[in-house]
Amino acid sequence: MKYSTGPYLEQINVPSDLRDKFNIEDLPNVSHDVRQYIVDVISEIGNSHFGASLGVVELTVALHYVFNTPEDQLVWDVGHQAYGHKILTGRKDALPTNRIKGGMSGFPKRSESEYDTFGVGHSSTSISAALGMAVANHYKGEKDRQHIAVIGDGAMTGGLAFEGLNHAGFEPDANLLVVLNDNCMSIDPNVGALREYLTDITTSHTYNKVKDDVWNLLGKISKFGPDAQSVASKISTALKGSLLKQSNMFESLNFRYFGPIDGHDVVGMAKIMEDLKDIPGPKILHCITRKGAGYKYSEEGNPTKWHAPGVFNKETGEIVKVVPKSPQPPKYQDVFGHTIVELAEKNDKIMGVTPAMPTGCSLTYMMEAMPDRSFDVGIAEQHAVTFSAGLATQGLVPYCNIYSTFMQRAFDQVLHDVALQNLNVVFCLDRAGLVGADGATHHGAYDLSYMRCIPNMVVSAPMNEPELRNLMFTAQQENMGPFSIRYPRGKGVTTEWKTAMKKIKVGTGRKLTNGSDIAILTVGHPGNFAQKAIDELKSTGASVAHYDMRFVKPIDEMMLHEVFGKFDKVITVEDGCLMGGFGSAVIEFMADQKYSAEVVRLGIPDEYIQHGTQQELWDECGYDTNAIVATIKEMLNLAVKETAQTAEA
Amino acid sequence: MKYSTGPYLEQINVPSDLRDKFNIEDLPNVSHDVRQYIVDVISEIGNSHFGASLGVVELTVALHYVFNTPEDQLVWDVGHQAYGHKILTGRKDALPTNRIKGGMSGFPKRSESEYDTFGVGHSSTSISAALGMAVANHYKGEKDRQHIAVIGDGAMTGGLAFEGLNHAGFEPDANLLVVLNDNCMSIDPNVGALREYLTDITTSHTYNKVKDDVWNLLGKISKFGPDAQSVASKISTALKGSLLKQSNMFESLNFRYFGPIDGHDVVGMAKIMEDLKDIPGPKILHCITRKGAGYKYSEEGNPTKWHAPGVFNKETGEIVKVVPKSPQPPKYQDVFGHTIVELAEKNDKIMGVTPAMPTGCSLTYMMEAMPDRSFDVGIAEQHAVTFSAGLATQGLVPYCNIYSTFMQRAFDQVLHDVALQNLNVVFCLDRAGLVGADGATHHGAYDLSYMRCIPNMVVSAPMNEPELRNLMFTAQQENMGPFSIRYPRGKGVTTEWKTAMKKIKVGTGRKLTNGSDIAILTVGHPGNFAQKAIDELKSTGASVAHYDMRFVKPIDEMMLHEVFGKFDKVITVEDGCLMGGFGSAVIEFMADQKYSAEVVRLGIPDEYIQHGTQQELWDECGYDTNAIVATIKEMLNLAVKETAQTAEA
Repeated sequence: MKYSTGPYLEQINVPSDLRDKFNIEDLPNVSHDVRQYIVDVISEIGNSHFGASLGVVELTVALHYVFNTPEDQLVWDVGHQAYGHKILTGRKDALPTNRIKGGMSGFPKRSESEYDTFGVGHSSTSISAALGMAVANHYKGEKDRQHIAVIGDGAMTGGLAFEGLNHAGFEPDANLLVVLNDNCMSIDPNVGALREYLTDITTSHTYNKVKDDVWNLLGKISKFGPDAQSVASKISTALKGSLLKQSNMFESLNFRYFGPIDGHDVVGMAKIMEDLKDIPGPKILHCITRKGAGYKYSEEGNPTKWHAPGVFNKETGEIVKVVPKSPQPPKYQDVFGHTIVELAEKNDKIMGVTPAMPTGCSLTYMMEAMPDRSFDVGIAEQHAVTFSAGLATQGLVPYCNIYSTFMQRAFDQVLHDVALQNLNVVFCLDRAGLVGADGATHHGAYDLSYMRCIPNMVVSAPMNEPELRNLMFTAQQENMGPFSIRYPRGKGVTTEWKTAMKKIKVGTGRKLTNGSDIAILTVGHPGNFAQKAIDELKSTGASVAHYDMRFVKPIDEMMLHEVFGKFDKVITVEDGCLMGGFGSAVIEFMADQKYSAEVVRLGIPDEYIQHGTQQELWDECGYDTNAIVATIKEMLNLAVKETAQTAEA
Repeated sequence: MKYSTGPYLEQINVPSDLRDKFNIEDLPNVSHDVRQYIVDVISEIGNSHFGASLGVVELTVALHYVFNTPEDQLVWDVGHQAYGHKILTGRKDALPTNRIKGGMSGFPKRSESEYDTFGVGHSSTSISAALGMAVANHYKGEKDRQHIAVIGDGAMTGGLAFEGLNHAGFEPDANLLVVLNDNCMSIDPNVGALREYLTDITTSHTYNKVKDDVWNLLGKISKFGPDAQSVASKISTALKGSLLKQSNMFESLNFRYFGPIDGHDVVGMAKIMEDLKDIPGPKILHCITRKGAGYKYSEEGNPTKWHAPGVFNKETGEIVKVVPKSPQPPKYQDVFGHTIVELAEKNDKIMGVTPAMPTGCSLTYMMEAMPDRSFDVGIAEQHAVTFSAGLATQGLVPYCNIYSTFMQRAFDQVLHDVALQNLNVVFCLDRAGLVGADGATHHGAYDLSYMRCIPNMVVSAPMNEPELRNLMFTAQQENMGPFSIRYPRGKGVTTEWKTAMKKIKVGTGRKLTNGSDIAILTVGHPGNFAQKAIDELKSTGASVAHYDMRFVKPIDEMMLHEVFGKFDKVITVEDGCLMGGFGSAVIEFMADQKYSAEVVRLGIPDEYIQHGTQQELWDECGYDTNAIVATIKEMLNLAVKETAQTAEA
């Protein structure tokens, strides 16, 4: 094995080793080894999250030391902080394969390990899931089992987390411990009133301090005559009864609150957790941690930068940047980020909204340039959409940028709060299609289907950067109603992307290549695969037409009449699920208009796709350039043709 | 006009009349008239919500008296409590048309009135929407405009409401007033920790009382020597700084909290609201109301019964029950309610989960019979699903019952927390298809499309009660994974519904009628329309086959091979949107398998359907019996045939 694990970690394959072989005093050394191993491996393999796992090393060690995992159920919220957990639960040798096709998943995953009690990726699910487990095991009579949800302060702002707290506080028999991993961060710095409240508790220590002071005072004033005594007793009763209960937000919700405590004091945490095991009902333990803790450069550096730094030199903290030889096309997200600023400079109605992804979606450019017009609302996709709807009712034009996979969480808000009222909210769906290493939980595979079934919704996807700009330009025009634009993770296709923007007629595609044997219909980025396929097929003599449809809805019916009038062989290509997606829209048209043609639909099949590079996954799903070439050859019987020509020659 | 409005209401057509013509002392009389008018009209027309609007009469009058509507923006959460609002804002004459096709909507609706600032129906949207409005108007420089969200304590448990609070507390310039309409109810009695907290505040009045007591005490003890003075000053600082802020959950989130106050004291409320106008930033006013207040029978009766009582005798409070002459088929919801108890008696793994709809979905039967195995988790669809996922990880089989339209809010949880992990959660989607009088916000039109695109998900719909029982029986078998069963609002088709249950092979349909000219493929309840259509067509001599497909996914491919092998004319019928739904699945199969046939898809078109009776809306959308008959006649050219026959005769 390439990576050394250190003397303590060396002895641990599963958590019972940790519990059987070590004393509580050894835990700092175990933590040291775990941290070092993460730094050693991740700095070399790159392609991983980093700061989050470093921040919870001590917490992870303490949890597995105190609780009887996997009998006790440990649920990690989001899960990109669970590398230490994976290392301690039989997967230290797998860490070097992290997020590589066929290798270890970057998130906890039930099929990977019995210690991964719940598959995660999206935020704020842990309290609900752990409560379900706790209620189930209480019902089954397994009343000693413990259930722990580890949730960040960022994830705590998600409405689902609150719903979970509200129900948990109503289940006094549930053995539920919520560990609030408070590091002031989502991926970007955390925002919102809850964040301020947690800071209040933490910095002033008011809660415990005032409680003590008041009790001391009450002791003292009882010396001062009957008047003071009577008031004191009155207050005393009130304090005991309700004020103390109300004096902490979590206690208001019937949780026993403990903390804040130092989340890097592994011994201290282990002792407290041990005590908490004996306290029944829902409890919350507030731990203060630092993202990137324990490694000089990430601890002192910018946590957003160290969230997923790629390969870096662990000695110098220098992040290895591969400098390409030639100028590269920009990322789609940056085209969005720069273009919204450009548009907003000319149209003072435009606002920007992101739920906790300003860096990821590049709304940061607007937040710097126009802080009063751009909003990071925290991890709160539902609110981001309904808040945007509210803005739109007052005549503004919000661009609400949410990753395709996270937009799933705001489906109802898009349908009920925006589209039903035909409000002009522009939905920019970043990371649409297969996203690569994040894997099954994060692929933006479904948006074409779930957006297409929403009345009034424009569903569009640009084939390249200038088209993204044109769609963004178009979406702000008068009376556009709800308008969605989806684009993939990663780079576009041209360095000359800063083109003058022009309005596109909604519901019109572009014919890019004429042909007569077969037509390829694409939407979005895969149009580039089609163009390459046509190039590759030139030598075969096949005459292949290509239509970039641009809009899945309204679909360009005039163009489809041309296609089905002219071709009896058609391929559709989309970076989305085949069930009900773009190809489905094309054959709905065909059936409704009583055309008949052989239509082959390429896209994501009806299964969850795991992790790998985008290219690997496109290949696996069969809609990249090679797949298009192969499909056309088969449909046109080209192999035979070529052989025939050879025979003739 | 048929209904008298009373001397005060008579003078009010729009809210400015209320403000211009009346003094604050007149508001009780205005309230009386509004309440009486609601009782007069609703008791006669039925088909309406009732208790909720009665409970907010005084609140409604006070809001329109104090605030400058529609310049000030008033957002009603959910909105079935807004009849008083509609009466005061130009629609008193429209109330008798409430929820009738072409008449007034039962919910606020932007297209209906400029006073309806936000279209509502689903819960918990008001804070986010009103915040968007407040932020927009602050940005536009219209800084005097007020923005009021009126939200029930039930709706407050929805995660979206919390997300809105968290952001609002971070926008100190937003002129936002949240009115918490606290009546201890959703539609059923409200549950959860927040509910208990609100009761604590309300019953003990601790918050304000202790605040006062502490201040008094501090005043007194300053007389007692330097020691006490120093402690007092220390506490004083701490209290001012943080304890008071923390001593109320809403103040923890940076809201100024006022209350609780009597929500039926219209004068008192108006005075407080007047004061609140001058306090900048986010504020919450906690009003205690009673559902059904001010009308003897609803005030004293069961609020769930008086939520939407139908026609009643306003003098006696007797609810008019139309007793049918013959025994009637049960409601689908009751078939669910009784069947889950029956199943759970035999399978101790079965649990029941509902987000605040126990009466609506009839989980009440299980809640009575097995209180430890059935959970009302409050208005929290997302949590209901992820909590169910947690239960399923421990080997239990939760039946999570959520109306189709509300399941939209848990789309991500279904996809990411259940289906991705292939957990055996049974989703029972009540009110699927067109629901009738509730209208556009409540139609369960989309679930076949949004469920179908989720990998691993079984998507099924029973044609009648015995089939619902069979599907529910099937869903609990070993290794079934995520399993959805959707059924409509209202009655089934047979009084003999309590049949012995049997397992259905997943992905198999039933051939109900043989035929040779054309095939009808249905899923769910519309299969009954098809059967009737076949009856009606008998006289024409047309030979019509009927397949009840039962499963949209996995679809019965063997059956479809039979259909497309035999028929060149096919009709699909579904009680769901045509975009990506059942018919779409059928033509996807046809295209993939290179069949060619004329397929006409009947279902809900790509637009929002308004309110009316179910039959009116089925007719409007064109997929009831008549529509099927007409479609078949057209496809088979039957009119011509019949004429030809006549000519021959």
